[in-house]
Amino acid sequence: MTAKKAKESFSTTTEIVLPNDTNNLNNLMGGRLLHWMDIATAISAHRHCQRKVVTASVNHVSFSKAIPAGSIVTLQAQVSRAFSSSMEVFVDVWMENNDGKQKCNEAIYTFVAVDDKGTPVDVPEVIPETEQEKTRYDSALRRRQLSLILSGRMKAKDATELKALFE
Amino acid sequence: MTAKKAKESFSTTTEIVLPNDTNNLNNLMGGRLLHWMDIATAISAHRHCQRKVVTASVNHVSFSKAIPAGSIVTLQAQVSRAFSSSMEVFVDVWMENNDGKQKCNEAIYTFVAVDDKGTPVDVPEVIPETEQEKTRYDSALRRRQLSLILSGRMKAKDATELKALFE
Amino acid sequence: MTAKKAKESFSTTTEIVLPNDTNNLNNLMGGRLLHWMDIATAISAHRHCQRKVVTASVNHVSFSKAIPAGSIVTLQAQVSRAFSSSMEVFVDVWMENNDGKQKCNEAIYTFVAVDDKGTPVDVPEVIPETEQEKTRYDSALRRRQLSLILSGRMKAKDATELKALFE
Amino acid sequence: MTAKKAKESFSTTTEIVLPNDTNNLNNLMGGRLLHWMDIATAISAHRHCQRKVVTASVNHVSFSKAIPAGSIVTLQAQVSRAFSSSMEVFVDVWMENNDGKQKCNEAIYTFVAVDDKGTPVDVPEVIPETEQEKTRYDSALRRRQLSLILSGRMKAKDATELKALFE
Amino acid sequence: MTAKKAKESFSTTTEIVLPNDTNNLNNLMGGRLLHWMDIATAISAHRHCQRKVVTASVNHVSFSKAIPAGSIVTLQAQVSRAFSSSMEVFVDVWMENNDGKQKCNEAIYTFVAVDDKGTPVDVPEVIPETEQEKTRYDSALRRRQLSLILSGRMKAKDATELKALFE
Amino acid sequence: MTAKKAKESFSTTTEIVLPNDTNNLNNLMGGRLLHWMDIATAISAHRHCQRKVVTASVNHVSFSKAIPAGSIVTLQAQVSRAFSSSMEVFVDVWMENNDGKQKCNEAIYTFVAVDDKGTPVDVPEVIPETEQEKTRYDSALRRRQLSLILSGRMKAKDATELKALFE
Repeated sequence: MTAKKAKESFSTTTEIVLPNDTNNLNNLMGGRLLHWMDIATAISAHRHCQRKVVTASVNHVSFSKAIPAGSIVTLQAQVSRAFSSSMEVFVDVWMENNDGKQKCNEAIYTFVAVDDKGTPVDVPEVIPETEQEKTRYDSALRRRQLSLILSGRMKAKDATELKALFE
Repeated sequence: MTAKKAKESFSTTTEIVLPNDTNNLNNLMGGRLLHWMDIATAISAHRHCQRKVVTASVNHVSFSKAIPAGSIVTLQAQVSRAFSSSMEVFVDVWMENNDGKQKCNEAIYTFVAVDDKGTPVDVPEVIPETEQEKTRYDSALRRRQLSLILSGRMKAKDATELKALFE
Repeated sequence: MTAKKAKESFSTTTEIVLPNDTNNLNNLMGGRLLHWMDIATAISAHRHCQRKVVTASVNHVSFSKAIPAGSIVTLQAQVSRAFSSSMEVFVDVWMENNDGKQKCNEAIYTFVAVDDKGTPVDVPEVIPETEQEKTRYDSALRRRQLSLILSGRMKAKDATELKALFE
Repeated sequence: MTAKKAKESFSTTTEIVLPNDTNNLNNLMGGRLLHWMDIATAISAHRHCQRKVVTASVNHVSFSKAIPAGSIVTLQAQVSRAFSSSMEVFVDVWMENNDGKQKCNEAIYTFVAVDDKGTPVDVPEVIPETEQEKTRYDSALRRRQLSLILSGRMKAKDATELKALFE
Repeated sequence: MTAKKAKESFSTTTEIVLPNDTNNLNNLMGGRLLHWMDIATAISAHRHCQRKVVTASVNHVSFSKAIPAGSIVTLQAQVSRAFSSSMEVFVDVWMENNDGKQKCNEAIYTFVAVDDKGTPVDVPEVIPETEQEKTRYDSALRRRQLSLILSGRMKAKDATELKALFE
Repeated sequence: MTAKKAKESFSTTTEIVLPNDTNNLNNLMGGRLLHWMDIATAISAHRHCQRKVVTASVNHVSFSKAIPAGSIVTLQAQVSRAFSSSMEVFVDVWMENNDGKQKCNEAIYTFVAVDDKGTPVDVPEVIPETEQEKTRYDSALRRRQLSLILSGRMKAKDATELKALFE
């Protein structure tokens, strides 16, 4: 299987915040943004492996900036690294409104490629090119260890990459 | 402000997995479940503080069990601990279908209580009673440290609760 | 077929009234509530019989209390009685908002259990335990007569239970 | 206030049964039809009184014919009679598909006309012209008595029109 | 195949403009109206040919009148002419609100009748009866030429009907 | 007002074809695509003028390629030319699925920039740079004449650009 460049999986999607997407402060609900980010990253994962993909996990996500009703929300997703059948995907989120355009969130989803019966299948490796792609590629290993620990499939003491953070 | 029992914030919601909620393997999309969990935990946070609440963060979530179309999905949420204006809420997810009823996911969301202008306001403390409530209450401190580190508001070396995990 | 306790079919669901759910007074539309009650009672009927269920009828429903946008609506449904393949299900509805929590509606739906071809199949009998369960169980016979009359399958003069109401 | 002819309130609406409208037998869910009928009758009530209207009640509704996915559903609503601020509206429902076009349901909703604050306001009387309009106009009084009894605002023994049914 | 009268394909549908249907001036979005008109005209085309139909094209549509939130929108569609497997359908759109009822738009969609595999199949011819039906029937030929030119299937110089417009 | 480059208004959005978006051949409904194209082009028009925008018209659109359920649909929109308060926007549509990625449609929408009261306001001129941008810029004048004729605001004989097409 031939490795593919990170940028080949790049995908952009754009949404307008409609009334039913908002909480009672008239800002985008966190859950709706999580849903949009899941779809944007799924499209990116699909572009990388050209297989069916299912969401395996989402990393810790913080919501620091309120996104008002009527804003245009742009989501840009790209696969950062692949591990046998799984792909880690970054999504960066911007909002545009009367206050201009600004970055308002980012998140990291992981997908697994599957065949028609849902059995995991291997995917191509990722070739990072830009500085940001390389940084995200390198740190993916650390996040994978954290994910394995949190899901009980690795012991904290074996996570050498992660332990370095606390020393 | 009088502390409130954890169970006073308990909320249950039930959904049926409809065609538009599914991916191309005919199972519930991860993003839709994240959205449902956000609403279920928001209701629970609201019941605890009786104020408007906004999603502050969601912890790492894994999706290990596929939830087929037509399943009944039950979400049970309850506040585990409060820190000044923020509340940590656990949500446990079950699915029911021809294969019976089984636990299929869980997640931890954090909400901030706000006034009508969106300014954070303090909330009552939480009184845990059952064994599970006490366990979740105790571990909330560790998760809060992880959250603060991941959002850059605490240095890893200062997270004494969390460091213990890796030693 | 073993009879089942009424409470085994209990189900709760919770909804938030979003903008698209409201009429031009900014209150929940009656039709949307009828839809939510149908889903809540269908889940309860399914829990009683563990078969596919289809809505057979809904009794007279009054809408006396307006439910404002942003309210949390809780629906609690439970099977009250079974007649061969049909199940009568009560649903009680509460709303929560700045004015506290209050009962705002109730309704009675009837479902028929069917196999994969849509043919009716028998369901377990219901065992009422609490006072309310017993009252609803007893009155179900009267309602069934009214339903049969209104659908033209029983003559008014044969409805002995019902006639008593007017004497 | 000048009385208006029944037919002036006539309204037709047409829907296609989409996947998310169906239950797990691939037929239209009862609750969705109740929602569509509520909107169709609300439009008819609005045409009669040219005021805001809110659903007051829906009579007993039976679902005897399954409506398969992909069917075209036509709803025709018309006000049958008015009582001070309330209007009774009939809705007849047809379905069209490969099996041709057939009547598949009917229901009776009651609406109250209100001003911008939600206070009931009087509406014009209804002038029935056709045989069916006259029959529905006459029987409306009997249904109103049943509705008042069921909501506890009239005693069964005072419902002279209704008692006649059982004698 | 027996020709059918134009009026046999007549269909009416009615929608209420809900919050999620509106742009940031609180009026109906053009795209939503295009969607509603597509469904209304598809129903009409289906009534004419009693086959599955797919949208082939929509003519130039102008949006000159804003339709405010809360308006009742009525769409009336009818087949104007058939050409082997294709049908041209007119849709007229009215809005009702506090300012009364007025015509607010019209559009012309073209559908192709297909079998279960998507292969085009012939449809009955249309018999126009009223003056408007005859006018729309006659002008359909000119529009068909314009459509063929715009899609590159006819050369402008061969469109005799259309050329007359510019002389 | 300073002219802006065409590419500054470029916008991309991506959608997955879900069950409720499809007709009974399991392909994307034409009306849904018209709705998606309206949103994509509205975002592009907004980016050009930084004002509220309303749809003024859509040119003739043909639907020649069926887009199956599950496909990823990418819409790329860019302003081609501005005329005082109106902007013409091109949208190109691609689909991706098991058959690879291919262009499947294109359309031309026109928007008007308005202030908060809905009054038209002038917008910056467009500077075309690439060959395609220049071609679309030039042909916009011809389309504007056709639009003015079709809406009755220009006589066919005065449309010099357009008449050239038929000679």
